Amino acid sequence: MSSSKKIGRREALKIFGAGGVGLSGVVGGLVGVEGMAAADDVAGRPGTRGDTLPGRRPAQAVTLKRVAADPTKVPPPINGAAPRTRSFTLVGREAIAEIESGATFKYMTWNNQVPGPMLRVRQGDTVRLTVKSAEENKSAHNVDFHAVYGPGGGAADTLVGPGQQKTIQFRAEYPGAFIYHCAVPNIDEHISSGMFGMILVEPPEGLTPVDHEFYLGQNEVYTDQPRGTSGHHAFDIPSMIRETPSYVLLNGEDFALTPSNRGAIQVKRGETARIFFVNGGPNLLSSFHPIGNVWTKAWPAGALANPPLRYVQTLPVPPGSTGVFEMDFPVPEPIKLVDHAISRWIRQGMLGIIQVSGEEQPDIYKAIS
Amino acid sequence: MSSSKKIGRREALKIFGAGGVGLSGVVGGLVGVEGMAAADDVAGRPGTRGDTLPGRRPAQAVTLKRVAADPTKVPPPINGAAPRTRSFTLVGREAIAEIESGATFKYMTWNNQVPGPMLRVRQGDTVRLTVKSAEENKSAHNVDFHAVYGPGGGAADTLVGPGQQKTIQFRAEYPGAFIYHCAVPNIDEHISSGMFGMILVEPPEGLTPVDHEFYLGQNEVYTDQPRGTSGHHAFDIPSMIRETPSYVLLNGEDFALTPSNRGAIQVKRGETARIFFVNGGPNLLSSFHPIGNVWTKAWPAGALANPPLRYVQTLPVPPGSTGVFEMDFPVPEPIKLVDHAISRWIRQGMLGIIQVSGEEQPDIYKAIS
Amino acid sequence: MSSSKKIGRREALKIFGAGGVGLSGVVGGLVGVEGMAAADDVAGRPGTRGDTLPGRRPAQAVTLKRVAADPTKVPPPINGAAPRTRSFTLVGREAIAEIESGATFKYMTWNNQVPGPMLRVRQGDTVRLTVKSAEENKSAHNVDFHAVYGPGGGAADTLVGPGQQKTIQFRAEYPGAFIYHCAVPNIDEHISSGMFGMILVEPPEGLTPVDHEFYLGQNEVYTDQPRGTSGHHAFDIPSMIRETPSYVLLNGEDFALTPSNRGAIQVKRGETARIFFVNGGPNLLSSFHPIGNVWTKAWPAGALANPPLRYVQTLPVPPGSTGVFEMDFPVPEPIKLVDHAISRWIRQGMLGIIQVSGEEQPDIYKAIS
Repeated sequence: MSSSKKIGRREALKIFGAGGVGLSGVVGGLVGVEGMAAADDVAGRPGTRGDTLPGRRPAQAVTLKRVAADPTKVPPPINGAAPRTRSFTLVGREAIAEIESGATFKYMTWNNQVPGPMLRVRQGDTVRLTVKSAEENKSAHNVDFHAVYGPGGGAADTLVGPGQQKTIQFRAEYPGAFIYHCAVPNIDEHISSGMFGMILVEPPEGLTPVDHEFYLGQNEVYTDQPRGTSGHHAFDIPSMIRETPSYVLLNGEDFALTPSNRGAIQVKRGETARIFFVNGGPNLLSSFHPIGNVWTKAWPAGALANPPLRYVQTLPVPPGSTGVFEMDFPVPEPIKLVDHAISRWIRQGMLGIIQVSGEEQPDIYKAIS
Repeated sequence: MSSSKKIGRREALKIFGAGGVGLSGVVGGLVGVEGMAAADDVAGRPGTRGDTLPGRRPAQAVTLKRVAADPTKVPPPINGAAPRTRSFTLVGREAIAEIESGATFKYMTWNNQVPGPMLRVRQGDTVRLTVKSAEENKSAHNVDFHAVYGPGGGAADTLVGPGQQKTIQFRAEYPGAFIYHCAVPNIDEHISSGMFGMILVEPPEGLTPVDHEFYLGQNEVYTDQPRGTSGHHAFDIPSMIRETPSYVLLNGEDFALTPSNRGAIQVKRGETARIFFVNGGPNLLSSFHPIGNVWTKAWPAGALANPPLRYVQTLPVPPGSTGVFEMDFPVPEPIKLVDHAISRWIRQGMLGIIQVSGEEQPDIYKAIS
Repeated sequence: MSSSKKIGRREALKIFGAGGVGLSGVVGGLVGVEGMAAADDVAGRPGTRGDTLPGRRPAQAVTLKRVAADPTKVPPPINGAAPRTRSFTLVGREAIAEIESGATFKYMTWNNQVPGPMLRVRQGDTVRLTVKSAEENKSAHNVDFHAVYGPGGGAADTLVGPGQQKTIQFRAEYPGAFIYHCAVPNIDEHISSGMFGMILVEPPEGLTPVDHEFYLGQNEVYTDQPRGTSGHHAFDIPSMIRETPSYVLLNGEDFALTPSNRGAIQVKRGETARIFFVNGGPNLLSSFHPIGNVWTKAWPAGALANPPLRYVQTLPVPPGSTGVFEMDFPVPEPIKLVDHAISRWIRQGMLGIIQVSGEEQPDIYKAIS
């Protein structure tokens, strides 16, 4: 790894541009001269064909500038409206993007984001779901919804090759926040690469009002190089079998929801928030914790039919499951959202920040000396 | 592994036969000429002493044709009958069997099955338990019941060498579904090799009636070769310390409860079922999920004294614990039971299927186009 | 590792003495002649500079004779006394101690013990906390309390270099048993090395009376050599990223709370106890189980605002979280407290024993034959 250097995101974007600089969709190490040159430029050395060190892999041209789902993009509450039919479209798209500054990865996304878009219905609604696959994709895809009574959770009837589409219809029979994810034979690789999201089925009475709702997703990414290595990261199945990922991420990018990347989430002191959290896995349980705060209410497994737990510091959220949380913000502070398997924050990139602004509350917290 | 090939289960059984072809009980790589030849035959090449590739290990003669516990073999409900004394015998037996087609492993079993037989009593019953060890065994064994107040959960007084037997008596003081398992110093190896099962202690009032009850157990097996490698797999302690198993299994065999092996579980649309699930481990937490369905009710830790959780997609079941679940079957479909640490399904063999037959229910689920 | 031998704890203490024999505070392999000699003596061979085998590492002089927190050292109950201000001081100290007989490790402790001291307040109390760092330390330290609404749970305002101290004040706003831990950038290494403990925030009404309260903490330690290797163990970050520790410990030392080390915990038949358990991690979830017993009551996440679960065999306690348990002792027996990821007991040192004395209760448990 001695030849690898990190560059700033801004510098990287300038070099790669939005549409790429000659490379596209080439995965796994066989890249052309332009790629070499680009990577050498990234690393700040002259790009000549001969001086690439063994094991060095150039980054690839990004075909997607942002993977991280916007955590504030949450569909509006339904709040007990009468059941009806709701239609959604998920578009599978394989795309090269930066997983951290200067390092590229071939993501598999729903609607160009990780996690895929949050869908919201109520118990008793009929859901019409169309699954499409982008023309330029290489793999087949489908969708398994944990909210579905039906073969493969819908996967059996949504298998689409590049350019195809299929539609299923189901009735949401039970409430809760459920994961959806790709479920082709390489299901673990597809989820690890980003193909998961959440469908919320509100109970008939709806949810209690809060000031904010946020949408977050965790997954771990298995690549052939450690985090912090510039260049292109190819997917690595042996690492996945050993459950030793290079990255553990919140919303699909290294430190995605922090000022150094896509920015922190903003709230004001005294407000309340609900967090919809989905753990794609494919393999690791998340010990989800808000540093400097507590889950005022927590619904394990996103199972909203049950009374919430009160004042939970860390909730285990298995892979292929969710958690729903409510938070209070009594003091101004940056709240760090982490998997408290804490190396995954420090060494593998799992971090999101909720920035609480407002006046200090010395009765609750203050530095003395 | 380049010399390894997979063969079909049928072909393998024909070659090995029921009683074996000259090999028996030899573990760990020191095998004779017959073994070499047998394995070469399995791999479809002439069996000559000289041409065996380095690292190649022949399969061994099976001494047990089926390891997978029959999931429908559940003792009948007690339903509030008065407390009484109930007697059970567990026979420890070490036996060679196929862990997947063409690959053998030295199992350690209770009563020739994995998980060991399900025992059923009610709170307040006196349980008389005899533990025997088969004459041909090599190791000592004992049993630790999580339902027992007593030294080692009974392990201290049930230690038996080959050909021995011992009896203990205990009163079931608290309700729930509890694991039992071998607990000699190499406890982890013995559990990984299959020595675990469940004892159900019904609460005084019994359990609510359902149409079916099923019995399932998960464990992970640490061998010296990856899944998919033909020949004999020896136990591998370093893999166990790293918690990187070759197999993660439901009912002791690769894809045991599927049409390609022992067959799927059969139910009819509109019926209900209760699942008794035990996770032997020895080390991995299971994220237990029914694909295309949901746990209508779930009792974490099998702790039946508590109200169940409703509509849970994925329940974390730690090693050395259980889960009790109830399911509805509103639509016809194959329901896949998996550990949603999803590589364990695809890469390591953890899969069981409940096949729901009956008429399509288009109001609940249908393919549109 | 062929050059490594194990020696008894008593022999090792004799050799190392209380204050050390020439070595002190040297970390990571660069040790002098005295160190070599001392280690060779430990291994029973003449200590000459030339004959040290490659990879051989001498033990280091202990600067702390006991790391294991006394499990009986629990602050007295508050039991509904009026809210007031309570003050505590945590002193960070880096110290060499034996992690197992003949093997040394550089711990990082709060108040010279692992886990750090248990702090006890009630909801509504104002807590004044001073964090100090010992003069001889090498690293910076701070404290994140999961009981705090405030930046970094207090970490932002408690960062101290060697010889420094800082004070914060917070009000305990919600009840429960919460972890505290160091949270500098190498947070995972500092927690793994021992820098974690518990603060209990009693609900206003207090807790129900029990005969005993005990304090236990689990953490896993990542070193450059396997458990059972004599000499000095240096911290190993790659092992931590792979989540493959050399040790998994209860109260900071190998088999700490057993007769072979610091002694078992003592209770009498018919008594009751409450266990305050904190899992520092940094990375592994604990499947906490009492062998030969059951958790009569269990509060997941130490979240005391919720009703307890009844009769739980094994509770998952994520890293960065806690569990509160109540136990009955109906029969005399040694109860083994383990992480039921059971290799961590047998292979990695996680074991504590509660010895229950008293008369046999044959109605509940007896050996028959």
